[in-house]
Amino acid sequence: MNNFEFKNPTKIIFGKDSIAKITEEIPTNANVLLLYGGGSIKKNGIYNQVKTALKNFEVTDFGGIPANPEYAILMDALQVIKDKNITYLLAVGGGSVIDGTKFLAAVAVYKGETPWDILTQNIKTEKGMPFGTVLTLPATGSEMNSGAVITREETKEKLAMGGPGLFPQFSILDPQVVKSIPQRQLANGLADAFTHVLEQYMTYSVDAKLQDRFAESILQTLIEIAPTVLNDTFEYKAASNFMWSCTMALNGLIQKGVPTDWAIHAMGHELTALYGIDHARTLAILTESHYQFNFESKKEKLAQYAERVWNINEGTVDEKAHAGIKKTTAFFKSIGINTKLSDYTNDYEGTAEEIAKRFTSRGWLGLGEHQSLSPDKVKEIVEMAY
Amino acid sequence: MNNFEFKNPTKIIFGKDSIAKITEEIPTNANVLLLYGGGSIKKNGIYNQVKTALKNFEVTDFGGIPANPEYAILMDALQVIKDKNITYLLAVGGGSVIDGTKFLAAVAVYKGETPWDILTQNIKTEKGMPFGTVLTLPATGSEMNSGAVITREETKEKLAMGGPGLFPQFSILDPQVVKSIPQRQLANGLADAFTHVLEQYMTYSVDAKLQDRFAESILQTLIEIAPTVLNDTFEYKAASNFMWSCTMALNGLIQKGVPTDWAIHAMGHELTALYGIDHARTLAILTESHYQFNFESKKEKLAQYAERVWNINEGTVDEKAHAGIKKTTAFFKSIGINTKLSDYTNDYEGTAEEIAKRFTSRGWLGLGEHQSLSPDKVKEIVEMAY
Repeated sequence: MNNFEFKNPTKIIFGKDSIAKITEEIPTNANVLLLYGGGSIKKNGIYNQVKTALKNFEVTDFGGIPANPEYAILMDALQVIKDKNITYLLAVGGGSVIDGTKFLAAVAVYKGETPWDILTQNIKTEKGMPFGTVLTLPATGSEMNSGAVITREETKEKLAMGGPGLFPQFSILDPQVVKSIPQRQLANGLADAFTHVLEQYMTYSVDAKLQDRFAESILQTLIEIAPTVLNDTFEYKAASNFMWSCTMALNGLIQKGVPTDWAIHAMGHELTALYGIDHARTLAILTESHYQFNFESKKEKLAQYAERVWNINEGTVDEKAHAGIKKTTAFFKSIGINTKLSDYTNDYEGTAEEIAKRFTSRGWLGLGEHQSLSPDKVKEIVEMAY
Repeated sequence: MNNFEFKNPTKIIFGKDSIAKITEEIPTNANVLLLYGGGSIKKNGIYNQVKTALKNFEVTDFGGIPANPEYAILMDALQVIKDKNITYLLAVGGGSVIDGTKFLAAVAVYKGETPWDILTQNIKTEKGMPFGTVLTLPATGSEMNSGAVITREETKEKLAMGGPGLFPQFSILDPQVVKSIPQRQLANGLADAFTHVLEQYMTYSVDAKLQDRFAESILQTLIEIAPTVLNDTFEYKAASNFMWSCTMALNGLIQKGVPTDWAIHAMGHELTALYGIDHARTLAILTESHYQFNFESKKEKLAQYAERVWNINEGTVDEKAHAGIKKTTAFFKSIGINTKLSDYTNDYEGTAEEIAKRFTSRGWLGLGEHQSLSPDKVKEIVEMAY
């Protein structure tokens, strides 16, 4: 096991009818900016529950944060924060709204001139404006970590940021919100959480037995609940397991003490930036080719995964490892997610070159747990995913 | 899954040579009380590492905190805290030293007249004196939770306390400390962590799939590493897995959203108070009879445990459940821990009555996940463990 530091101070408030507890978590004198997305929370009743809980607070609304939170829109929100002397942010939404709120929490206290520098210059936020979240879409884990990914349409970029000052002070996880989530988003959430775990697990062994087993536990649980979550009939129990699994998949715990990969995410972000493909689906597009390309360095863990997660007990290490990859692709398909770039666009020629060029220009010369995936290798992996 | 709240702000600093990092974690102007146990840290070099890290701090030593931290001795430490205007506590030890330090962190800011009331009147500490820990004995999980158990020789009592203000600010976990731990303590640590998991898992199902799998992951890991940990030759990897498993076994995570039992601990504390039997061994004494006595209400989970942790796939639910109990007893024996009270004392007659009487006098009228174990049932369970 590698050396590590772990601290996660977010308070999770999990369960049925927990949205009302916002009242106890926000300082009574706070001047709150309520951030949300396209307005689905106004249809499903969550907005009203939040407003009721906030009835004794000063609150300004800021809706319209899109999937892949857009820099220009967040700059509008920053203006509201300044104009209204906002002191507390409350994100009500999925990963995009929460990520956008984290960026605002950083920017609101940032002393530099250009907020975009936080993303390009990898500036860590030690202390941001305090914020809480009400999660409406299990998927990204953003509700219990300190990282965010921000998109800039103008330059077709999608970049990550974060820092120890960007953990939510609290996050409300009421599994009942799952009831009104469309199938497409549910499938995305399952695939996103599944791939988060894979990125922290499918590397090489450092004999971190508990981290491996925790990762496998999340994968097994996602596989087990997926059909029920996608079923038309809402089941609270499955929704609970789905929601908690997504949070645990990326709250930092399972990545401590082990090597992590994240190449699938780095490449996937480019597919979203270039084609607007849903984040989770870009991951599903790249997983198989990434594991095929890096088969030799990952096969031991792939075989362990095949055994423990998919109960494949027959065959050599290579055979099990290949079977594990096949099972992963089959899992994505079983939840209705296609796994080739050509399933999403006809205009894919040249994508691999373009992504390799972008990585080169940013100085990203070695992705993956061995930092060995140079832009030319990235090009091959993306081509295999056409 | 039941509703829950989870917040654990302790910073874990895990790995080789991490003791030196104390320096960065304690406020520079702190007046530190360094608390430790019987002095083994002076023989194994840990004391010197800590002192070196603290060389620029004002530090007062307080050694001699015994296993089962004793109220009278802690009252002496409280006097030192007052006399020396101590502002920060640093526990260097195992669960007993850390628990004693937590009690002091509570008492140091307590406004009431009699510190013992914190234990008897179940007073939660919202904000204690800040403290950190350097763990020298993986076992109790106290390094990453906010609870403690304190013993009073005068009245032969052993009682629990805690509160959200009693999380360590940081805990240093350097697996190298395992090298100098005697076999007996290693076995105790394994049994203690194992039983901590059982108490949070072996109840009835609320379909909390991830919590169940995380619990099983810790049990599987402890079983897997036990022989290596107990081997005369020190292995860093096994020590790392041992240490992290013990912490995760009782840092609050796996108990969230599920019913918990803790009857084994409640009964076990009495055996320690009455006979001075090592805490972990009291748990091993009571586990089998507790599960036999409560077989009907626990058999579904016992069977799941037998399947997933011990790979027992044949037989009925009842058969698997019984096999799971047998495997548990065999595990304790495999690490050199006897599982009957009569293995530890010849003077056991009347113990069951005495414990039942104590529970009655304290008003503990229903132990276990169903609060159904009345003192007369406790009497039967303890008798079965003779």
